[in-house]
Amino acid sequence: MLESTVAAIQPLDEAAMAAARELQGRLTKPAGSLGALEPLSVRLAGLAGACPPPLPEPAAVAIFAGDHGVHAQGVTPWPQEVTAQMIANFLAGGAVVNAFARQAGASVTVVDVGVATPIPGADSEESADPAGPRLVAANVRPGTRDMTVTAALTRDEARAAVETGIRVAGELIDAGAGILLTGDMGIGNTTPSATLIAAFARVDAEAATGRGTGVDDETYARKVSVVRAALARHEPDPADPLGVLAAVGGLEHAALAGLILGAAARRVPVLLDGVIAVSAALAAAAFAPDAVGAMVAGHRSAEPGATAALRHLGLEPLIDLGLRLGEGTGALLALPVVTGAVRVLHEVATFDSAGVAEK
Amino acid sequence: MLESTVAAIQPLDEAAMAAARELQGRLTKPAGSLGALEPLSVRLAGLAGACPPPLPEPAAVAIFAGDHGVHAQGVTPWPQEVTAQMIANFLAGGAVVNAFARQAGASVTVVDVGVATPIPGADSEESADPAGPRLVAANVRPGTRDMTVTAALTRDEARAAVETGIRVAGELIDAGAGILLTGDMGIGNTTPSATLIAAFARVDAEAATGRGTGVDDETYARKVSVVRAALARHEPDPADPLGVLAAVGGLEHAALAGLILGAAARRVPVLLDGVIAVSAALAAAAFAPDAVGAMVAGHRSAEPGATAALRHLGLEPLIDLGLRLGEGTGALLALPVVTGAVRVLHEVATFDSAGVAEK
Repeated sequence: MLESTVAAIQPLDEAAMAAARELQGRLTKPAGSLGALEPLSVRLAGLAGACPPPLPEPAAVAIFAGDHGVHAQGVTPWPQEVTAQMIANFLAGGAVVNAFARQAGASVTVVDVGVATPIPGADSEESADPAGPRLVAANVRPGTRDMTVTAALTRDEARAAVETGIRVAGELIDAGAGILLTGDMGIGNTTPSATLIAAFARVDAEAATGRGTGVDDETYARKVSVVRAALARHEPDPADPLGVLAAVGGLEHAALAGLILGAAARRVPVLLDGVIAVSAALAAAAFAPDAVGAMVAGHRSAEPGATAALRHLGLEPLIDLGLRLGEGTGALLALPVVTGAVRVLHEVATFDSAGVAEK
Repeated sequence: MLESTVAAIQPLDEAAMAAARELQGRLTKPAGSLGALEPLSVRLAGLAGACPPPLPEPAAVAIFAGDHGVHAQGVTPWPQEVTAQMIANFLAGGAVVNAFARQAGASVTVVDVGVATPIPGADSEESADPAGPRLVAANVRPGTRDMTVTAALTRDEARAAVETGIRVAGELIDAGAGILLTGDMGIGNTTPSATLIAAFARVDAEAATGRGTGVDDETYARKVSVVRAALARHEPDPADPLGVLAAVGGLEHAALAGLILGAAARRVPVLLDGVIAVSAALAAAAFAPDAVGAMVAGHRSAEPGATAALRHLGLEPLIDLGLRLGEGTGALLALPVVTGAVRVLHEVATFDSAGVAEK
């Protein structure tokens, strides 16, 4: 499934992009006055192969959750159980991602791709509200292994997680989603994110590593040395993205890479959240460089690695508000900008039709 | 009315702000992880004098439109008639501001505070759709005078425009608006904006002046020299904001300053659009420094003067996407961020209530 998905990912449609550029020039506004929204609308036309491209509606957030063996190295002050507890919070609708998703009219799907501890009340939550958050049970294994000791995953485990992401993308798109938003939950997951970014974007461990949920100086230093040790042990080869994900990735990172590939193969845009998402996006781009055409960078995470990854991908984020929460929150805040960019091509009058003089 | 409005503007409520800070610390997210949204939510609690503050709904965009005598100096390649033609486009729902307002569920009110030419089809449009854009006829005079020759307005005319803005704010709030968004239309209006910014923020004419809708080098040089000539002729005194607005302002600038003062007096947030809005905000802050507490900077306009004005006001914009369209478009793109910031205080579970462990 991975190979056929990668093979299905094609370049943007140049004719649709040219049509969108030409249309932007005829709309009742000074040329270029919508700034970054204009090239974004052009790219989404190229992705859809149509001008105007469809409005990116409805939106679906997919939150992939997993735990991390590297938690044992003391890279975060949060207990591992918080991953499962926050999933229960997502399913109950109490997290920030839920508040933002309600506001944006987006569905929330939580995918347990590798949580290590039981999810409190998961059995009872599932049937609570058919329109509410949904849990998909797809646990590949209960957390990764400690990457400072051994490979985090086998290649087969990494592939299973990637293919879970591809499958989820297909199901959400089959159910009508016009845009997918990446979400994540996994205590400790900024550490594998930093390692993936260092591996794929070829930046130093320190440049790729941030303070995550807000660690102190001592923990930060430990985190950098953990990233460095993992890179030294595995020498991950960016030309082998499945190998990189297996060596130093997380199950949610692998699944997110799959989600992105699945969206790109179906020519549906995927709105990236923060540092976990963009580290997974690097893996997706390593599998299929044309997948970048489907990616929209939602926001610039406060994590320095996110900026390094975005630079490597050639993406400029839409929002830059110092967020470092994850869950999909940054992507949700950016969603109205994406929708607005496309809506302009659908709804705005031309100089001709509105009887407005040009300069 | 101006004096009583200014007198009604009070500082933020410290107790409500303290309550919002404390609540932010108990919500299920790492402290500070919502970046700029957290202090924004705290400030809006202080403005409302309540924690949580009300959701900023429904939103109302007020587009003040006026023409400019300085158009005669060749500061823009667009014919003056485009102001009236774009108003017709707003009323027909065909402009970018309409598309963004429909997406955000915001009403659109167009206020003719000083348009120089007839508005095509204005009589017939008004009754078209009761939920659609509405035109308020409040023309103080058909455009300002050329500020390079004489004062743009008399003090009485400037006051009439400011009080129109105060009145519109009151009417929109009485009708239920939970947040006001500034909009503007006026061919040539980046030139008085630059002059106002130079006068109030004490920056050089060149630092305050940008390329507006996209003028060439020759027009840009002329624009800077027009700003410089107006400053030299009138020597506007920032301690006399009505005098500054009369000397070098526009009717829409004066009305926007009034809208901001009216919102601040009613303790309703006002979301600022681009360079025209922030130049008017400087006037509002000169009338009443505490009015800044009601202002939220929607976006960073591509105009350099906007950044100088925001710095002077001590405001950081929410969106920075190179927009330079005006109309209220940048404010509308930022609206979901403001709403989201407040929604978090209403809807997100606490660590206690959700059974999530803390670090």
